[in-house]
Amino acid sequence: MYQLKKSTENELNKVQSSIKKELATEKIIKEIYEYIFNAEGKKTRALICLLASKSIDITPSLRVDLASIIELLHTATLVHDDVVDGSNLRRGAKSVNQVWTNSYSVLMGDFIYSKAFILMVKLGIPSILDELAKATNDIAKGEIIQLELFERNQFAELQDLKKVSYLKTGRLFEASAKTGAMLAKRSEKEIKTFGLLGKALGIAFQIQDDILDYETLTVNTGKTSMKDFKEGKITFPLYFALQNSIKKDKRFILENLGKSKLSLKNQNKIYNLIHSSQTQQDINNLLNGYLKEAQNHLKNLKNHPCHSEMLNLLTFSKIRKK
Amino acid sequence: MYQLKKSTENELNKVQSSIKKELATEKIIKEIYEYIFNAEGKKTRALICLLASKSIDITPSLRVDLASIIELLHTATLVHDDVVDGSNLRRGAKSVNQVWTNSYSVLMGDFIYSKAFILMVKLGIPSILDELAKATNDIAKGEIIQLELFERNQFAELQDLKKVSYLKTGRLFEASAKTGAMLAKRSEKEIKTFGLLGKALGIAFQIQDDILDYETLTVNTGKTSMKDFKEGKITFPLYFALQNSIKKDKRFILENLGKSKLSLKNQNKIYNLIHSSQTQQDINNLLNGYLKEAQNHLKNLKNHPCHSEMLNLLTFSKIRKK
Repeated sequence: MYQLKKSTENELNKVQSSIKKELATEKIIKEIYEYIFNAEGKKTRALICLLASKSIDITPSLRVDLASIIELLHTATLVHDDVVDGSNLRRGAKSVNQVWTNSYSVLMGDFIYSKAFILMVKLGIPSILDELAKATNDIAKGEIIQLELFERNQFAELQDLKKVSYLKTGRLFEASAKTGAMLAKRSEKEIKTFGLLGKALGIAFQIQDDILDYETLTVNTGKTSMKDFKEGKITFPLYFALQNSIKKDKRFILENLGKSKLSLKNQNKIYNLIHSSQTQQDINNLLNGYLKEAQNHLKNLKNHPCHSEMLNLLTFSKIRKK
Repeated sequence: MYQLKKSTENELNKVQSSIKKELATEKIIKEIYEYIFNAEGKKTRALICLLASKSIDITPSLRVDLASIIELLHTATLVHDDVVDGSNLRRGAKSVNQVWTNSYSVLMGDFIYSKAFILMVKLGIPSILDELAKATNDIAKGEIIQLELFERNQFAELQDLKKVSYLKTGRLFEASAKTGAMLAKRSEKEIKTFGLLGKALGIAFQIQDDILDYETLTVNTGKTSMKDFKEGKITFPLYFALQNSIKKDKRFILENLGKSKLSLKNQNKIYNLIHSSQTQQDINNLLNGYLKEAQNHLKNLKNHPCHSEMLNLLTFSKIRKK
């Protein structure tokens, strides 16, 4: 895990307990809500918000409140994503649509979304409300574009993938950093810098997620690896593999893309195509480009109290394995 | 349709055009969005908001803005409900989940929800934001409770059905009336009265919807009638039918509840059980009770500019056939 100051770690733990406190009185809602938040996520977005909002001028509990709101928004998108993707697993446990049904997932996602908006209204800062409402809208937009993109999978362009990665992942990273800085009443210029840093870091996170989806093959049974591939998603690694493959291999990829079951032989072949040196070089260049961009923005925040921790987070993003 | 003043009708038309203007630049989102809003709903919630916000002191366009936000919120819930219920039709046209897929419905619902929140933030009235965020949360809550209720269908109590009707329908009627009055800067007392009127009217609307679900049998082929029954939903008419039936008929109802296909003979039998004089009397008493309650609250708004139109709306609620 990242090197964090003890105080930041404590705050991140407070986010978890603050979220778990937001219970409904109705038994069934309480049950599903607890199930969802018992599986702890990495809380990267909440962390970015906590870092960007560091300031001696702001009540620490307000920072935890905002970080909790962001974690709620993120979790709502995950609950809905599991329906969209037909996923079985989330954070190592069965997803809500598996334990209950898709119907419960749709409604619990709505419940968590609106809970986040209630807390946002309570926080009472219009610029933060505006940014988070727009980010939520952009996330849905990104997911819809992605859905349509994968239906006509042959024609995904690099710029389409970049746009989707920004909207579905980078956008909430951007909003987390920006609203953190807004809460701490930073200057317009600093808020903008935090936004750009968050955006680049978020896209880098998505690229790393895409890479990791092809990395688990040798470790376990291969059961959950290549999830994106099996769902028919062309992500960055596969995009480059398609670019770098000869016609025959390209056809092989497209013929197998979206098949929920792959023979070990075919799975190995796809793994090897993804791990060709050219494709690995392309994907690493892309990842490093975004991380470099994030680092450049961080250079403009040298005197900010989060500087060293944010630098650790950027460094970790390159090497994280889950 | 209700007897409305020409000016109110014009405003209701403006709600429709205002919503349709809220387009995304992305082709696929634009396409689904236009599809959804080409089928016009009754816009009862928007109308209530327009009526409750009548005042010479408020810019008319702001009232249309708020009514549009409420119609967007309502439509988002419908798009998600069609996934939850596995519905094929909405407002006389194929539902989004039929023309596209459930995945598109989940994400378009999120898109419309967050669009509504963006417009709410733009409107910039904290009390309205608070009320609508809470109403949205309560709607999701009501739907989840309903979902669980129908899974253990033998044990639905009248108070459970009332609670669900309030949360899933009455709550947004209540919020539409309250936020309308808030926008018009009415007194706390008047805002409260509008809320209570909206709540009672909303529950009455739900009861009438439940009744109408059993009324279409003789008119058309019976294809879309008894939708609630076929989805396994115990609504008010069925609740009373169960209460008033002899043991054998009760068993018959429960054995057939939730079957997507019913023989004409069985469908007729259910129709007759619903239309027994006792059950009809019970359901009409319930409906009239809520309408009476709404009328009593309206008596406290005698000098409000919406008084005569609201009275027409209440009268219409008793006799509406769709």
